[in-house]
Amino acid sequence: MDSFPLLAKGNKAVNQDRLWDDLMALGNITEPGMPYTRRSFSEMFLKGRDYLRHAFEKAGMTTNVDENGNLIGRLEGTDPDAGVLMIGSHSDTVPSGGRFDGVAGVVAGLEVVRALYDAGVTPRHTIEIVDCLAEEMSEFGLSCVGSRGMTGHLQPAMLDYTGPKDESLRSAITRMGGDPDVISQETRDDIKGYLELHIEQGRVLESEELDVGIVTTIVGITRIEIIVTGLPDHAGTTPMHLRKDALSGAIEVVAGIRDKAKELSDAGEGYFVATTGEFYLEPNAANVVPSQVKLVIDTRAQTRELMETFLTFVREEMPALAMAQGVEVSETKILSDSLHTECDEGLGNLLLEAANELGLTSKKMTSGAGHDAVFFSRIAPTAMVFVPCRGGRSHCPEEWSEPAQLAAGTALLFETLRKMDAR
Amino acid sequence: MDSFPLLAKGNKAVNQDRLWDDLMALGNITEPGMPYTRRSFSEMFLKGRDYLRHAFEKAGMTTNVDENGNLIGRLEGTDPDAGVLMIGSHSDTVPSGGRFDGVAGVVAGLEVVRALYDAGVTPRHTIEIVDCLAEEMSEFGLSCVGSRGMTGHLQPAMLDYTGPKDESLRSAITRMGGDPDVISQETRDDIKGYLELHIEQGRVLESEELDVGIVTTIVGITRIEIIVTGLPDHAGTTPMHLRKDALSGAIEVVAGIRDKAKELSDAGEGYFVATTGEFYLEPNAANVVPSQVKLVIDTRAQTRELMETFLTFVREEMPALAMAQGVEVSETKILSDSLHTECDEGLGNLLLEAANELGLTSKKMTSGAGHDAVFFSRIAPTAMVFVPCRGGRSHCPEEWSEPAQLAAGTALLFETLRKMDAR
Repeated sequence: MDSFPLLAKGNKAVNQDRLWDDLMALGNITEPGMPYTRRSFSEMFLKGRDYLRHAFEKAGMTTNVDENGNLIGRLEGTDPDAGVLMIGSHSDTVPSGGRFDGVAGVVAGLEVVRALYDAGVTPRHTIEIVDCLAEEMSEFGLSCVGSRGMTGHLQPAMLDYTGPKDESLRSAITRMGGDPDVISQETRDDIKGYLELHIEQGRVLESEELDVGIVTTIVGITRIEIIVTGLPDHAGTTPMHLRKDALSGAIEVVAGIRDKAKELSDAGEGYFVATTGEFYLEPNAANVVPSQVKLVIDTRAQTRELMETFLTFVREEMPALAMAQGVEVSETKILSDSLHTECDEGLGNLLLEAANELGLTSKKMTSGAGHDAVFFSRIAPTAMVFVPCRGGRSHCPEEWSEPAQLAAGTALLFETLRKMDAR
Repeated sequence: MDSFPLLAKGNKAVNQDRLWDDLMALGNITEPGMPYTRRSFSEMFLKGRDYLRHAFEKAGMTTNVDENGNLIGRLEGTDPDAGVLMIGSHSDTVPSGGRFDGVAGVVAGLEVVRALYDAGVTPRHTIEIVDCLAEEMSEFGLSCVGSRGMTGHLQPAMLDYTGPKDESLRSAITRMGGDPDVISQETRDDIKGYLELHIEQGRVLESEELDVGIVTTIVGITRIEIIVTGLPDHAGTTPMHLRKDALSGAIEVVAGIRDKAKELSDAGEGYFVATTGEFYLEPNAANVVPSQVKLVIDTRAQTRELMETFLTFVREEMPALAMAQGVEVSETKILSDSLHTECDEGLGNLLLEAANELGLTSKKMTSGAGHDAVFFSRIAPTAMVFVPCRGGRSHCPEEWSEPAQLAAGTALLFETLRKMDAR
């Protein structure tokens, strides 16, 4: 059997225009009047999958939808015992999202196989390109449905979650071509490696003018709800010194959280961010002193130590910031708390080696967003490639990566797959 | 003719129980299931007026509804050339409001006339007790409808304002018994003095354990809209140092406004308060760095100098507070701007004299809320009496004043009216 074609700088096997054409074609498969929308479980989503299935088959792959509703394109390898090397991401979008988040990774996988096909090369391992079902938060209140399923993390109770028109997730997965009755906590043991390309959704690569990012860690995410409570006094008749203004306490809490996050971020002990993204004022009337503010804090950390340091601040120091303004923190609740994910060090080094061979500038970095890779990391060596996106914008129609940036990332996938296949 | 009965400490003419019974009876005239609601222009409002009309007539007054829709009870004086001494307030409420705001002042006026009637005394001046139409912000987007009308401030264009079911204010006033066609910018010139009793709607009297407040000034109110603009970055993938977080700028603006208000309030140059009461965050999603915050600031000042000092701060120093956080103040707009109102100094001194004679503790103070008195002050000597209310709560079902507190304020009206009648 032939080996992979040896490629390096300029990787000619990956065809930038073909890759781009697919992305633009899929962008056109959108809910009319609200580009770019292809929500999981929708008819439009299935139209996008029809496009992908056809393209997978044209590239020499067989296709099927697994029990979890994932669309899989499969290219059999020469060694049936070698197992599967997988490239995955997702083709669903948020409402009025972009043309790159998710689908760029699926199309990159497709292009890698097409490049192999064009070169007449059959790898030793079987290659699977996976369009994971419903990576974005779905209308069933669950994200990463397909990658959870394939890795044994789709709990039976989750199948009873309901969405629009009271449909169960079980029924919706069936509509997508899955078979929820055979979903189990057993996981596939044939996956020898998982790679995922994704736009960065941030400005780090752009601001440092780098070609690609090699993800070593995916952050843990902890969400915290804080309620600050004062008294709803008349805004005209209550002198400043008699007020218990919940907003006045809440702004000190927000400032404290911001400043603590900056301190932890600057400490050089790993990636850390905290965001007060939700802010609800009551009664929100011009002539009433605010009586209550509810905050939702989204916190992301590369290590548990960083997260614990922050949570200690929230528990022990934050309430005093509100009390200094004469109001109370009446509730502090952890809404959700997930651990960070370490990517496979060996795969990360292979990616770095390949990037260097291709002449791509790169850095190892932390992903501040969750991805299907989080779940695959629990059952197989996993790594991710980030490509830059303009202004860091994502989940919006302005989301943009240059064709050459996407092609560079795809070439990196190709080269790394070659190295993995040779191991 | 007999003079007023001489009353002082313990003023026996004013009957505390009778006053209280009226207030409780009017409290029971409320929209079912949402105590205490008697919205202007509603059927329930007219039921409240039926109660008042009957009580006015029982106290020896003739009643009519003037062209502006005000219900007026009138007790003719002995000297037709002496003119009218007026006691007014309003019987309408906010939705789910209280039993005292407004109606306490009308019932206090009624009780003053009843006390005269019981004593068989006819004053020299004609006395009018006025239930002003729609003091609270109405569904037609206008407050103080009746007092505007009676003082020549109900502009013809305002009669075209529309409310529920596209009814015009003109038609609604007609429904209330008014005659909008004869409303003019001519004003009554027979009003020789206007008194209004109102609950304080604040905690000043309560915290200083005083019986009554004598209002010398009603604040000017300026409302300002401020928009702070940043960038809607991904909350996970955007490091702290690359963010343009609109919330981070907005909290510094809110803190700056609060601290400036405290400084002006503490300076001893008059009453001043500023409140950030409305706060709108966009996109208000946990995983997105806030891109915009809209604030509405309600500012109230005893003097124009205080207000101008504050507005200079807003124009010249406030934007830098947001810019220091890397974001912009994209808009600063004056939504409304009304001058303060000076009450009549002579009437204020009469009130103080009467309070001292009655043994009531008092202070001269600024009203932080607007009242019908604002409009009457433009055509006649005007003064207000505040009575304490529990915890300063108002515009809510918990609104409360003790029977003895209301009776003390009513006795003060009686004594002051006696002094006015004797002048």
